Amino acid sequence: MPERKTPLTEDAIVEHLPGLPRWERRGRTLHRELSFRDFTEAWGFMSMVALVAERLNHHPDWSNSWNKVVVDISNHEAGGLTEIDFELAASIDKALGEL
Amino acid sequence: MPERKTPLTEDAIVEHLPGLPRWERRGRTLHRELSFRDFTEAWGFMSMVALVAERLNHHPDWSNSWNKVVVDISNHEAGGLTEIDFELAASIDKALGEL
Amino acid sequence: MPERKTPLTEDAIVEHLPGLPRWERRGRTLHRELSFRDFTEAWGFMSMVALVAERLNHHPDWSNSWNKVVVDISNHEAGGLTEIDFELAASIDKALGEL
Amino acid sequence: MPERKTPLTEDAIVEHLPGLPRWERRGRTLHRELSFRDFTEAWGFMSMVALVAERLNHHPDWSNSWNKVVVDISNHEAGGLTEIDFELAASIDKALGEL
Repeated sequence: MPERKTPLTEDAIVEHLPGLPRWERRGRTLHRELSFRDFTEAWGFMSMVALVAERLNHHPDWSNSWNKVVVDISNHEAGGLTEIDFELAASIDKALGEL
Repeated sequence: MPERKTPLTEDAIVEHLPGLPRWERRGRTLHRELSFRDFTEAWGFMSMVALVAERLNHHPDWSNSWNKVVVDISNHEAGGLTEIDFELAASIDKALGEL
Repeated sequence: MPERKTPLTEDAIVEHLPGLPRWERRGRTLHRELSFRDFTEAWGFMSMVALVAERLNHHPDWSNSWNKVVVDISNHEAGGLTEIDFELAASIDKALGEL
Repeated sequence: MPERKTPLTEDAIVEHLPGLPRWERRGRTLHRELSFRDFTEAWGFMSMVALVAERLNHHPDWSNSWNKVVVDISNHEAGGLTEIDFELAASIDKALGEL
């Protein structure tokens, strides 16, 4: 399991970001907005994310409005971005078949 | 199917609200915040809401953060609360076994 | 909504089948077996099917074993294949982006 | 994580069973049949089971037909019931609020 307690240094964060071009770094959060064809497709995506999050025991803050999904990943306990945050973002991309 | 195009009058809204004591009326929105034991239980709830929303073809704006779910119901097209909004709220309560 | 009470004639069934090349007709049932990369992807599919079925108010008999999903569509009440069965099969294909 | 590679002895299996009175032992399988109010409630249950299974990395063979869900738990790789099978069964009961 990736490290989830120690915040990454700024250098380490900057090194990780190019591997996740679909995510925007917003301070201590990784942010991604997705649009789908309709609610059904958005929900198919969310259902995959739910499994990924449970497997990693790391859950996003996320919202949905019909075909839109907004995902924010952060690590409240560590007080900064950690390995597990990047792992969750990458696993979400992988569920979408992007990685 | 309940009416979804005509905004309810203020009188009609006030008449509906006592039937949904777990929902807070916020202007043109019905708002409810729920807490569950953990993500698994929250997700079980969300999965029922997804079905209910699809059946009614009326979808909430909602967000989740681990065991918390916030649901906002409104009718952007009608520009005000309509019958279908109250129907969705009641159907969500019913899925929870509360109605 | 497609007709769900009147069984289709054999001629009508034979006419529908070419539009659903991924489904196998087994007597009064439409049958499809699907394989996914892993459980997560299979579950994303199943979550879309659940919505489609609820929207049509017509639900499949289906089973899952990790990355495998088997879907059987029939109409017990009508006692034969009906329009709604073909509609459900087509909607499942559409959710997969195949139609 | 519970042991998932070594089949339990018959004595150990017999010792575990009273803790899971809702499950029927069928040779190398734990079997449970559930009935819900409707598809929505059945699907809420299945969505919780999906998370539980993914968290344990141990997935049931299961089927659904509207308000019915049949769950079979076994360990094909180990060639017999193992600790992880009982853990999955207990986690499913717990998701239902029964444990």
